Amino acid sequence: MAPSTEMRFSGWGVEADAGELSGHVISWLEQRFGAPLAARVAPPELDDLRLSASQLSKRATAKLSACVGAANLRTDRGARLIHAAGKGYPDLLAVRSGKRLPAPDAVVYPADESDVRAVLKICGGQGIAVVPFGGGTSVVGGVAPLRGGFDSVIALDLCRLRKLIDLDQSSRIGTFGAGLRGPELEHLLRARGYTLGHFPQSFEYSTVGGWVATRSAGQASTGYGRIDEKLVGARLSSPAGELKLAARPASAAGPDLRALVAGSEGALGVITEASLEISPAPEVTRYEALMMPSFEAAAEALRTLEQQGLSPEVTRASDEHETEIGLAFAGVDGVKGKLLNGYLRGRGGAPGALLILGWEGASGSIDQRRRAALSVLKDAGAIGLGAGAGRAWAKSRFSTPYLRDHLLERGVMVETLETSTSWSNLTRLYRGVGDALAAHAPFVGCHISHLYLTGASLYFTFIAPQDRADPLAQWKAAKRSACDAIIAHGGTITHHHAIGVDHRRYLKAEDGAAGVDALRAVKASLDPRGLMNPGKLL
Amino acid sequence: MAPSTEMRFSGWGVEADAGELSGHVISWLEQRFGAPLAARVAPPELDDLRLSASQLSKRATAKLSACVGAANLRTDRGARLIHAAGKGYPDLLAVRSGKRLPAPDAVVYPADESDVRAVLKICGGQGIAVVPFGGGTSVVGGVAPLRGGFDSVIALDLCRLRKLIDLDQSSRIGTFGAGLRGPELEHLLRARGYTLGHFPQSFEYSTVGGWVATRSAGQASTGYGRIDEKLVGARLSSPAGELKLAARPASAAGPDLRALVAGSEGALGVITEASLEISPAPEVTRYEALMMPSFEAAAEALRTLEQQGLSPEVTRASDEHETEIGLAFAGVDGVKGKLLNGYLRGRGGAPGALLILGWEGASGSIDQRRRAALSVLKDAGAIGLGAGAGRAWAKSRFSTPYLRDHLLERGVMVETLETSTSWSNLTRLYRGVGDALAAHAPFVGCHISHLYLTGASLYFTFIAPQDRADPLAQWKAAKRSACDAIIAHGGTITHHHAIGVDHRRYLKAEDGAAGVDALRAVKASLDPRGLMNPGKLL
Repeated sequence: MAPSTEMRFSGWGVEADAGELSGHVISWLEQRFGAPLAARVAPPELDDLRLSASQLSKRATAKLSACVGAANLRTDRGARLIHAAGKGYPDLLAVRSGKRLPAPDAVVYPADESDVRAVLKICGGQGIAVVPFGGGTSVVGGVAPLRGGFDSVIALDLCRLRKLIDLDQSSRIGTFGAGLRGPELEHLLRARGYTLGHFPQSFEYSTVGGWVATRSAGQASTGYGRIDEKLVGARLSSPAGELKLAARPASAAGPDLRALVAGSEGALGVITEASLEISPAPEVTRYEALMMPSFEAAAEALRTLEQQGLSPEVTRASDEHETEIGLAFAGVDGVKGKLLNGYLRGRGGAPGALLILGWEGASGSIDQRRRAALSVLKDAGAIGLGAGAGRAWAKSRFSTPYLRDHLLERGVMVETLETSTSWSNLTRLYRGVGDALAAHAPFVGCHISHLYLTGASLYFTFIAPQDRADPLAQWKAAKRSACDAIIAHGGTITHHHAIGVDHRRYLKAEDGAAGVDALRAVKASLDPRGLMNPGKLL
Repeated sequence: MAPSTEMRFSGWGVEADAGELSGHVISWLEQRFGAPLAARVAPPELDDLRLSASQLSKRATAKLSACVGAANLRTDRGARLIHAAGKGYPDLLAVRSGKRLPAPDAVVYPADESDVRAVLKICGGQGIAVVPFGGGTSVVGGVAPLRGGFDSVIALDLCRLRKLIDLDQSSRIGTFGAGLRGPELEHLLRARGYTLGHFPQSFEYSTVGGWVATRSAGQASTGYGRIDEKLVGARLSSPAGELKLAARPASAAGPDLRALVAGSEGALGVITEASLEISPAPEVTRYEALMMPSFEAAAEALRTLEQQGLSPEVTRASDEHETEIGLAFAGVDGVKGKLLNGYLRGRGGAPGALLILGWEGASGSIDQRRRAALSVLKDAGAIGLGAGAGRAWAKSRFSTPYLRDHLLERGVMVETLETSTSWSNLTRLYRGVGDALAAHAPFVGCHISHLYLTGASLYFTFIAPQDRADPLAQWKAAKRSACDAIIAHGGTITHHHAIGVDHRRYLKAEDGAAGVDALRAVKASLDPRGLMNPGKLL
């Protein structure tokens, strides 16, 4: 059975939440591009799309149906289409291309770990590739229905595995079914006084299993930690058997296998459960915005905060380009822009780099940390813009993907990519990737959104008028330039989007030949026939 | 070339540091055992020991000598003996057994990573097993010269790889040669204003490479983090090639291979470099002792401290048994014991569980954290014993291994083992392991020494009159009971001593069959002939 709300196949979220493209956005882009945006082309409807017939054999269909029940094996166009792609830019292009869409031959909805094991056994016997499917929000091709040499492929949708399996309050450990989505998980925890504190931009649709499989960071990772840092136990069902790792605070018993589960991207098996560190639900949540004189000043100040233990839970520092577009898109241009400039000038500043801080926790501890942090920031030239601008960001924190859809309908390519590096290398990497992208797009912006003792993430957004003749080639060229620049300038190929299909060719630059071989050996051990998510990660 | 100070083969450290067995210790043990300790049997001298002739072929000797230089290939009795064993109780017994000691056929001292690579190539070609050797402080058989089916085995002593390779101050990353020992490493860092904050009991002799290979914790791990948490980059030289992992704050590029290097125990390759998070050298170091009403009250209070972010850098809570022996060994019995009891009674307390707290950092932040922590502890019934008792612990923090040697000379078995579990399971595990050991030893004590959000470590010490007829069988029986109890009660088989030889049979209980197979696959990929540290870990 599908969950109550499935995302539309043609874009982000459900239609009702999509909103509209604001006039501010259109006018800023038209000015930047020096040309009007194209007329809107509506995304295709379900009936417009072409899909091959399911290749699942009768025998396999019967076996799978007997295993999970007929209602939990779907081969209809709707189910297959929704599971045909993730939400990367190439996925959105494919849906709009008019070409025949590759789709899984069936969608299987297991009830529990034992169902997953049985399905994997059938797929092993019948030679069927398996794509584990959580929220379907991958932006790197992570759920593409690739067959890997097999005749058929199924999407294994984990939406029925969505229990809060255990809540160990004294140990601060929550154990969750892999298919739990963000809002439902937070609802279950908040009702008991806790939070996971994990809020990726995909929060509304992505799942616990997907977060672990892709080493998700979350917008509040600076405070609550990344998902791989919070993972204390896991179950991963693989064709060769189950990895069942008990929740443990620490161990010296050889290499930590939790680190093989985190980042396994469905290629080593199916994550069915995860035990994660949880936190008390915050007493206070306080967002605010400040203007920093420059991105470099912001980065240096954030380094100080992090290394002095003063960081807020959410930290987001936009560079000058992203600050400009952010203000413009929010309608802070024209008269409002002049007011802002006047305000900043009156305090000895100017529009520079916008900083969003989000404080979450017990009120006493926040007050103290915040006072100390603001003192550091003000010494670095910060000018407070108040809580309103901070709340505005928090309100729209999950909405950017909708904007991307609207822009695509108006012939605008919007894409993002992300990396991380040490503090000492941050500026070099920022410039290297920015320069590479500038050759492909009239707008390139960047922000820092995750702080670590030793470094930070960089998240780039680039926007260009779409090349209608070959939009995929246009994207590929920009993506390739950016990835090459990331490697050349010492960044990691992905900080939180994962490898999927798009970054596969760069894994060797990341891990070396011996490292990739070691991972392949792990895969061959857990998945000897190569059923699991072929063509991804390795 | 050997380092300036090599440990004596017959016990811990160098003779000059060994001190003497105090009368307090002797009298307490004789009272507990109800019998006088045996007369001292001095450990054997170098010339007493029997050693087989080196099995290294002339051809291999010539090749290795040409590779590292004749001065860096040693086959003399002294070098072979010092590398013949670690410092576990079975190792100490073997040295004293009068039986022929297995020893490596040669000791090779590479100068750098390129030497290591060349040596591994020669060993691959000639069929020679390789035991990477750092400080030789393993207490689980990690450096035993096992041949794994090969005719000969060398110890690869990394003491020449002891550079501070890079210090990235703005990123708080230090990159160290694997052979750097604790004191030298700290000296290099302190001279520049930093500390690694890593102080295992073996600190004086153990090395960076060994810490990473065994996922060492360190007595200050509660504050500074475990070595595996601090590892941001590494180089591991394996027969199939090098794993060269750049220092990165975070990544989502598939499974984190740093987690294969940490805990690799020489079985996957030779760690040659490690990049680790460093911290500013503390402005203030403040140790103190408190008496808690009971071990359970201490555990519960420490859970509160840790989950409220108030933990000191060093936390050590002894149970009632360890408290009793600790006070007795320090001479706080008899008249002094009565004084202590009177002091405690006057404050409404009694001897219970001794708590040692060590605060390290900037003075302002410590004062505040300490005040809040002491308030929590006092609510839980803590009575302050002052800084003197804390300093006394800090002064003797690396000296317990010497005591073990002295006791062994007097016919007393002393052994330690350690585990960890979630807070909610801590008491159950404590009782289960304690009961198992009580069947083997008249004294069993325990302390908590590492706090985590989700749980804590338990470190057991047991002491018994040695069974002179078969001391190894006596040890094996106790060890077996304790390990079985750890597994049965949900603990990890080792929190910071590693797997080595002694815990190998329990790896399957830890990782499951599929997990062990996956690790074996990694080994087969990196070390196809199985040269590397055979018989350990896997």
